[in-house]
Amino acid sequence: MFEVAEVGRSVDDDTFEALEEDLRTRLLDAQFRARDARVPVIVIVAGTEGAGRGRVVDRLTEWLDTRGVDVRAFWDETDEERNRPRWWRFWRALPPRGSVAVFFGSWYTRPVLDRVAERLDAAGFDAALRRIEFVERMLVEDGALVVKLWFHLATTLQRNRLKADLKARGYKRKAVEKRLDEVEEALPRLRSAGERAIRLTDSGHSPWHVIEASDGNYRDLRAGQILLELLERRLAETESRVGSEPPELVRPPMPGPQPTLLEHIDLRQSLDRDGYRERLRKAQDRLYRLAWAFHRKQRHVVGVFEGWDAAGKGGAIRRLTRAMDARLYRTISVRAPTDEELAHHYLWRFWRHLPMRGYMVLYDRSWYGRVLVERVEGFASRHEWQRAYLEINDFEEQLVDHGTVLVKFWLHVSPEEQLERFRSREATPWKMYKITDEDWRNREQRPAYEEAVNEMLARTSTEFAPWTLVAADDKRHARVQVIETFCDRLEESLG
Amino acid sequence: MFEVAEVGRSVDDDTFEALEEDLRTRLLDAQFRARDARVPVIVIVAGTEGAGRGRVVDRLTEWLDTRGVDVRAFWDETDEERNRPRWWRFWRALPPRGSVAVFFGSWYTRPVLDRVAERLDAAGFDAALRRIEFVERMLVEDGALVVKLWFHLATTLQRNRLKADLKARGYKRKAVEKRLDEVEEALPRLRSAGERAIRLTDSGHSPWHVIEASDGNYRDLRAGQILLELLERRLAETESRVGSEPPELVRPPMPGPQPTLLEHIDLRQSLDRDGYRERLRKAQDRLYRLAWAFHRKQRHVVGVFEGWDAAGKGGAIRRLTRAMDARLYRTISVRAPTDEELAHHYLWRFWRHLPMRGYMVLYDRSWYGRVLVERVEGFASRHEWQRAYLEINDFEEQLVDHGTVLVKFWLHVSPEEQLERFRSREATPWKMYKITDEDWRNREQRPAYEEAVNEMLARTSTEFAPWTLVAADDKRHARVQVIETFCDRLEESLG
Repeated sequence: MFEVAEVGRSVDDDTFEALEEDLRTRLLDAQFRARDARVPVIVIVAGTEGAGRGRVVDRLTEWLDTRGVDVRAFWDETDEERNRPRWWRFWRALPPRGSVAVFFGSWYTRPVLDRVAERLDAAGFDAALRRIEFVERMLVEDGALVVKLWFHLATTLQRNRLKADLKARGYKRKAVEKRLDEVEEALPRLRSAGERAIRLTDSGHSPWHVIEASDGNYRDLRAGQILLELLERRLAETESRVGSEPPELVRPPMPGPQPTLLEHIDLRQSLDRDGYRERLRKAQDRLYRLAWAFHRKQRHVVGVFEGWDAAGKGGAIRRLTRAMDARLYRTISVRAPTDEELAHHYLWRFWRHLPMRGYMVLYDRSWYGRVLVERVEGFASRHEWQRAYLEINDFEEQLVDHGTVLVKFWLHVSPEEQLERFRSREATPWKMYKITDEDWRNREQRPAYEEAVNEMLARTSTEFAPWTLVAADDKRHARVQVIETFCDRLEESLG
Repeated sequence: MFEVAEVGRSVDDDTFEALEEDLRTRLLDAQFRARDARVPVIVIVAGTEGAGRGRVVDRLTEWLDTRGVDVRAFWDETDEERNRPRWWRFWRALPPRGSVAVFFGSWYTRPVLDRVAERLDAAGFDAALRRIEFVERMLVEDGALVVKLWFHLATTLQRNRLKADLKARGYKRKAVEKRLDEVEEALPRLRSAGERAIRLTDSGHSPWHVIEASDGNYRDLRAGQILLELLERRLAETESRVGSEPPELVRPPMPGPQPTLLEHIDLRQSLDRDGYRERLRKAQDRLYRLAWAFHRKQRHVVGVFEGWDAAGKGGAIRRLTRAMDARLYRTISVRAPTDEELAHHYLWRFWRHLPMRGYMVLYDRSWYGRVLVERVEGFASRHEWQRAYLEINDFEEQLVDHGTVLVKFWLHVSPEEQLERFRSREATPWKMYKITDEDWRNREQRPAYEEAVNEMLARTSTEFAPWTLVAADDKRHARVQVIETFCDRLEESLG
C-alpha cells in the first residue's frame, strides 16, 4: 500500500511559490463558503514519525483563516480524559458546524500504537478500527467532511531524519543508536498496523489519502490540494442539493507531472530467446508439481490478471495453464456483464466462479473493472467506485482467510509499445479480431486510466494480497516474471 | 430487547380473514412494482426455534406471486459450499434485481450457533456481525431492500411447542426430556447471542423487526404488514427520485389495537404513606453508603430519566440526590439545545457531561430525545432517527465498557392521571410554571409518542443497559421503585 508513496515526488521552490498563491486564495474562499454552509471539517493528519506532520499543520493554519481553525494535538491524556470513556477527548474536540478542526494525532494513534506494542490483539485492533469507521460515518451522515491524510516516508529516509532530529535534541551518540534500533525493530509492525488501519477505514464516505513526504514542498502542496478538492466537491454537492447538476469543478493547481508507481516500472527489462526458453521450461516444471501438490493438500488459488489492452495478459495466462493439468484450473475471461450478471451486485459474478478447495481459477480481468473501466467510463458513479476499494479489500480478505492464495498481476506496457501492437494486430489477419474501436478509444483515455490504476494500486495492494507489477514491453520477460512469481507465491504458502 | 415480544398479541380468525384480502392485494401490487423498478428484495426470516418460521415462509409464498419469489433454506452445507469461503453460499442465493428471495436461516444462523456453542469467542462473534452489517449495507447501497424479521417466542411457550413437536416426531418420553433439558440449558446463551446479533446489525439501512410469535395469525399478519410497508416506502422513494415529495403512504391494514409493553405496566401499584416513608428512608440510607463506596472505588454512574410529561421525573431524581453528598453527583436537565449544541452532532451535548471516575451524572431527559420528541415532531428525518438506535447503543456500550453503571428509567403514567396533574399544575400558583402549551400539544400526540416509546424500548433495552419501566400513577410507588432499583443496580455492580 505504501509503495505508491516511495517514488520520489518533489516540487522545486519556484513551482511551489507559483502554485501556492492560487491554492491559498481558493482554500480561503472554500473555507468561507464552508462556514456559510455550516459544514464542519475534520482534517486528520496521520502517518510516519519524521514525515513532518507538524510542518503540515503549520502550513494549513497559515493558509487558512485561523479564526475558523482549531488545531488539536492528541498528546498525553489528561486526568480529565483518562477518567472518561476513550472517545470523550475526541468528542470534546469535534468542530462545530462551519469550523475546521485539524487533528494532529487522532483516534487512530492509540489503537495503532497499542497494536504495535501488542497491548491489543488482532481482533481487538479490528474492533477499534471498525468503531472508528462507524464514528466517521456517523459524523459524515451528520454533515461533516472528514479529510484523512497519511504522510508516508520510506524507511531509510525516516532513519536519517530521526537521527538528525535526535542529534539536534542533544542526544548522545549511544542513545541515538539505541533509539534508532528500537524504531528499526518496531518498523515492520508499525507499517503493518498502519496498513490495516488505513484499509479497514478507507471508506467511500471518508477515504484515506496517502501522501509521499520525502519532499516538504510536495508534501504540503499535496495536502493543500487534497483539502481544497474535497472541500470544493463537498460544497458543490451542498450548494446544488436543491437544483440539478453540480457545477463542473476546477482542479486545484497541480505541481507539474510527478513520478507515479507505474512510471517506476523499468520497462527496459527483457529476455533473449534462449534465456526465455530455459527459464520458462523450468518454471513450468515447477508449476506442474506445485499445482498437483496444491490439489493434494486441498489448497486453492485465485489469479487476477489486469493490465493495459494488448499488454499480453492472455499470452501470460496460457503459459501458466499449459503447465497444469486441465482438471485443476479454470480460466474466467471477464467481458461485458451478461443480463443476469447486471441484475446483481457487481461482485456477484466473481463470487460465483470462486474455486473449491484443491482448485484454481484465473481471472483474465476481474472485479477491478469497477475501479478501472467503470470509473473512467462513468458506468459507476463516484460514490460507487469510491466505496468499491473497501468492498474489494473485504472480499479479498475473505478469500485469504479461507486459505486461498491470491496472486494479482498488473501488466504494464508503454503507450509506444501498445501502439505498435495495435498496428500489428490490425495488419495480421488472424489477430484482427483482437482489436476493436473500443481499444483505440481506451487508448485516448490513457491519462484517466493511469490515475485510476495508480489509485487502485495504492488502495488495494495489501499485505495479504499485494500487486505484482510486471514490465511487459518485452513479452518474454513478462511471461517469465508472471510464471515465476506465481510459483514463488504458491511455494511460500506451502511453507 | 425481547420483552416487547412477550405481551400476548393475537388476532382472531375473523379479523385475520378480513385483513388478509387487502394485505394480499397490496402485497402483490407492490411485488409487481418492485419487479418493474428492478428492486431486489431479501427477506430474512430468523428467530427462536418453534416460533413457526416455516409457517411464515409458507404464508409469504402464498401471498406473493411465486414466479418472482425464491425461498432459500440455509440448512446443512453442501460440499460445494463447504469448500468455498463462507459467504459463497449466500452470494449465490442473492436475488437478481426485481426478484424476492426469502431466506429461511441466513448469514445470522451460523455465527449465533457458533457463539452459543462457544466455537466463537466474543471478539470473533462481533467481527462476524460487523461483516454482516457491512454486506447488508453494500447490498442496500446497490439498491436492495433487506427486510429482517425476528420471530420471538417466550421461553415457556417455546418449551411447550418443542415438546409437542418432538412427541409428534415420535420421540420417546425420555428422549423428549433430554432434548428439552439441553435446549433449556442453551436458552440464556441463545437469547443473549440473538440480542447481540440484532443490536450490532440494527442499522438505519436495514433495521430489525421483532415479531411476537405466540399467535400464528398475528405473527403472519405482522410479517406481511412489515414487508408491505417497507416495500411501499422503498418504492415511493425510487419512484419519486426524479420528482419532488414522495407520496403519502397508506398504512397497511392493522389488526385492531394490540397490547404493548407500556400497557403491560400495572399502573395500579401504589404505596401508603407509612410504607412509603419507611422504604424511602431505608433506600436513602443505602444509597448514601453506596454513593461513597462508588467514589472510593472510582466507579461511576450514569442515570437516565425519561417518561411522560408530569410523570414525576424531577421528584424521583430529587429523592435520589437528597440521599447523596452534593460533591458526588451532577444533575443535567436536558432542554432545547443551545446554539453551540445545535452546531454539533446530537450526541455531543451528552458526551460533554459524562462523569469522571468516582462520580455520578443524572440526566433528566437524555439522548433518547432523538427517537422520541425529535422523531414525533419531525425535527429528525426518518433516516436520522432510524440510525440513532445503533448510534445510541454503541454510545451506551462505550460507557459500560468503560465501567460505567448505566441505569435507565421510563416513568409511565396513564393519560387520565396525566390530565389530572396538568390541571392541578394550572390551578396551583407555584406549579403553574411547570405547565406550558407544549405539554398540551404533546398530550394530543400521545399515540405517536406511544409508538415511538415502544420502539425505543424494543431497540435499546439491552443486556448491558436495560430499561426499568416504572408505574408512576402513584408517585410514592414510583419514587420508591426508582431509588430501590437504582440501589440494586449499584450493589450488583459492586459484586
